[in-house]
Amino acid sequence: MKKDITIIGAGLVGSLLSIYLSKRGYKVKVFERRGDMRKEKISAGRSINLALSDRGLLALDKVGLADEIKKISIPMHGRYIHNLDGSTAFQPYGKEGQYINSVSRGTLNMKLMDLAEQHGVEIFVNHQCDTIDWKTNTVSFQNSGTKLISHSSELIFGADGAFSAARLQHQLQHDKFNYQQFYIDCGYKELTIPPTSAGDFAMEVNALHIWPRKDYMLIALPNLDKTFTCTLFFPFEGEASFEKLTTAEKVKDFFEKTFPDAVPLMPDYVNEFFTNPTSSLVTVKCFPWIREDRFALIGDAAHAIVPFFGQGMNCGFEDCRILDELIDQYDDDWKTILEEYQALRKPDGDAIADLAINNFTEMRDKTADPRFLLQKKIEARLYEKYPDKWIPAYSQVTFSPHIRYSEAYNNSLRQEVIMQQVMVKSGIEEKWDSEEIEKLILEKIGRR
Amino acid sequence: MKKDITIIGAGLVGSLLSIYLSKRGYKVKVFERRGDMRKEKISAGRSINLALSDRGLLALDKVGLADEIKKISIPMHGRYIHNLDGSTAFQPYGKEGQYINSVSRGTLNMKLMDLAEQHGVEIFVNHQCDTIDWKTNTVSFQNSGTKLISHSSELIFGADGAFSAARLQHQLQHDKFNYQQFYIDCGYKELTIPPTSAGDFAMEVNALHIWPRKDYMLIALPNLDKTFTCTLFFPFEGEASFEKLTTAEKVKDFFEKTFPDAVPLMPDYVNEFFTNPTSSLVTVKCFPWIREDRFALIGDAAHAIVPFFGQGMNCGFEDCRILDELIDQYDDDWKTILEEYQALRKPDGDAIADLAINNFTEMRDKTADPRFLLQKKIEARLYEKYPDKWIPAYSQVTFSPHIRYSEAYNNSLRQEVIMQQVMVKSGIEEKWDSEEIEKLILEKIGRR
Repeated sequence: MKKDITIIGAGLVGSLLSIYLSKRGYKVKVFERRGDMRKEKISAGRSINLALSDRGLLALDKVGLADEIKKISIPMHGRYIHNLDGSTAFQPYGKEGQYINSVSRGTLNMKLMDLAEQHGVEIFVNHQCDTIDWKTNTVSFQNSGTKLISHSSELIFGADGAFSAARLQHQLQHDKFNYQQFYIDCGYKELTIPPTSAGDFAMEVNALHIWPRKDYMLIALPNLDKTFTCTLFFPFEGEASFEKLTTAEKVKDFFEKTFPDAVPLMPDYVNEFFTNPTSSLVTVKCFPWIREDRFALIGDAAHAIVPFFGQGMNCGFEDCRILDELIDQYDDDWKTILEEYQALRKPDGDAIADLAINNFTEMRDKTADPRFLLQKKIEARLYEKYPDKWIPAYSQVTFSPHIRYSEAYNNSLRQEVIMQQVMVKSGIEEKWDSEEIEKLILEKIGRR
Repeated sequence: MKKDITIIGAGLVGSLLSIYLSKRGYKVKVFERRGDMRKEKISAGRSINLALSDRGLLALDKVGLADEIKKISIPMHGRYIHNLDGSTAFQPYGKEGQYINSVSRGTLNMKLMDLAEQHGVEIFVNHQCDTIDWKTNTVSFQNSGTKLISHSSELIFGADGAFSAARLQHQLQHDKFNYQQFYIDCGYKELTIPPTSAGDFAMEVNALHIWPRKDYMLIALPNLDKTFTCTLFFPFEGEASFEKLTTAEKVKDFFEKTFPDAVPLMPDYVNEFFTNPTSSLVTVKCFPWIREDRFALIGDAAHAIVPFFGQGMNCGFEDCRILDELIDQYDDDWKTILEEYQALRKPDGDAIADLAINNFTEMRDKTADPRFLLQKKIEARLYEKYPDKWIPAYSQVTFSPHIRYSEAYNNSLRQEVIMQQVMVKSGIEEKWDSEEIEKLILEKIGRR
């Protein structure tokens, strides 16, 4: 007999997980706090577009959705850097033909919910997880604000995001629960670049645009409707900060000085600045993720990360894929499956959380540094010539789904040590693509 | 008009805080989850004796309790090390006349509650904090399990310990709350050494006894009734662990091999091992601790630490003293008082948390190492001769209440670098008290 399974949260990860499990014959019920986004207009989450990359695609492919989603995505081949002096630079993400995909969170989520229902998953919306009785594995939901509904099942997944109610219930009734949540000093606010009057994209479409300004940055991702969604990542407090930009004049003054080439493309940005919310960015790490064979956290509920590596959704989808492979391997022995799932995914969740924090510095600061761009060029050249010897960290994370995040993180630390040594060689600007430098790096790789 | 103040928790810190505030003319109500420990027999907390040192005494002195408490304390002048081979060593904590005090948690707590009531503080027992409405600063309490009682006040202190209900309410309704709780791999269990048949202490009374065994340790503190309370700090899992000691035979076998000289002193230890609870050890860090002029966390609720530096209570008492000094300084301007309190105490709470974790390694492992003892001897000699140039880290934390924990931590890191360099000098065992070594260290201090 297949277990009855409850999933808390019908977001991206909860919906995908429900498909994986129902395809295996489990009876799956999904409970979602919000209304049905397919029927009502609901803000689907914290960002309207996401960067889908190979890890996410691999997980979608296993339920037959990868091709369909790629069709409604926009390829982004690299970073398009907008410097303060008006100059621009393009930095490819990987080798020719490697790219990440700008996709609408809402569209993707709705497709996953549809597919889940086609596979027999029952989705209950407007059901907010209130408490969980761990003795009987019973979740109580607050339905339409007043009525309490209980549901018992053999196995519960908490897939309800960074502020998971399931995780809170797990934490409150756990003897030794390690938990960490920390907010970075920056928040974010979304702004819009509409199509041109001729109805075209206002900038290069196949790129992720970045205006790196050291302590903060503006980025822009393309949407299918030919708009770009811009996101300002900006300190809450300090000299240049949300706290200081209190009037339209101050906002205008700041943007005109700081993002001069973006301002003409954002006709409504001052109004949007005061209308759109300022959101915060949190990293959550916790342990354990599971309770025997009866409960597991998955996706952001287990490991919320900041968005700077574009891996939040990809990591959550990979959780589902790994879990699915473990079900194969351990033949529905859920005690072992969940233990292995946690043992594999906890270090990977920690690694991508740290990589994502580090990438904020890289994006907002280093992408404006010619020496950093030179280093990336050297690494890209190595990758082309010796793809078995040197895969740049970004590529390991983004385009190499069979390298674990934790491996990629360790590799990146070792590579950085080598590149630091290479970048201080005198004349590196001239001889960056010389035999000498190539030999030096290959030697250093050999030695480790 | 003086504010109405609510304190959640009538433990050591809540009670002392209530005295400080009521002496200033504030109307203070204290709400305690448990019953009245002065009337019922209640386990007062996680340990029955505590190491009271100069920071705690300074804070007690300001309410006139230091002398009275010293009279019911037992001075411990140093660590008394019990090695596996039967040899022992005594390591003084500081200079002649410097010592820490073994004191009963229950007795101290009850004296503080009595004094609080003498100053007009109202203490409500059996009142468990349930929720806090931050809009109206109203705390709801669960009284005797069913009835809900609400109490509003202008200022609330959360002094309800490591698992603070007030902190949880603060966290759940806070936009950007940084929070970390982590458990070390070891738990603890208390055992007893009774008086000898002649009615005496079974070991040297004026010392803190340690059986350091690398990955774990047994310690013992003296009580006024001539017993010692022993605490076994021991891994939960692994080769030698609570998980493995499942039978009386295994416990006996382990203790006889590991603590041969302690076993004859603990006639009931096997029974106690299975009767007494195994408790866990948590560190909690969070931020912010305050809400405008209306709320603050204090003591373990703000910064729970592991017990290995004997500073948990001392740090909480110091919180109260610093707060009291800030009330003087800022003349009841509570917005400024709480901001300054947080700015001063947050780094100090973080520092003592890290120092306490590090001291576990020192106690369980290094105190058995002759080289470590030699290093301490060199440092003690310097302290004697040049008290203005070298105060050992332990002394800074324990006997120097006017050095902040955060300063002591930074100093300790710098001192450790110097001592590492000194300890590798060849022949250090012979010339540890030579002019040469002394000059070397003084030079190194001069250079920093």
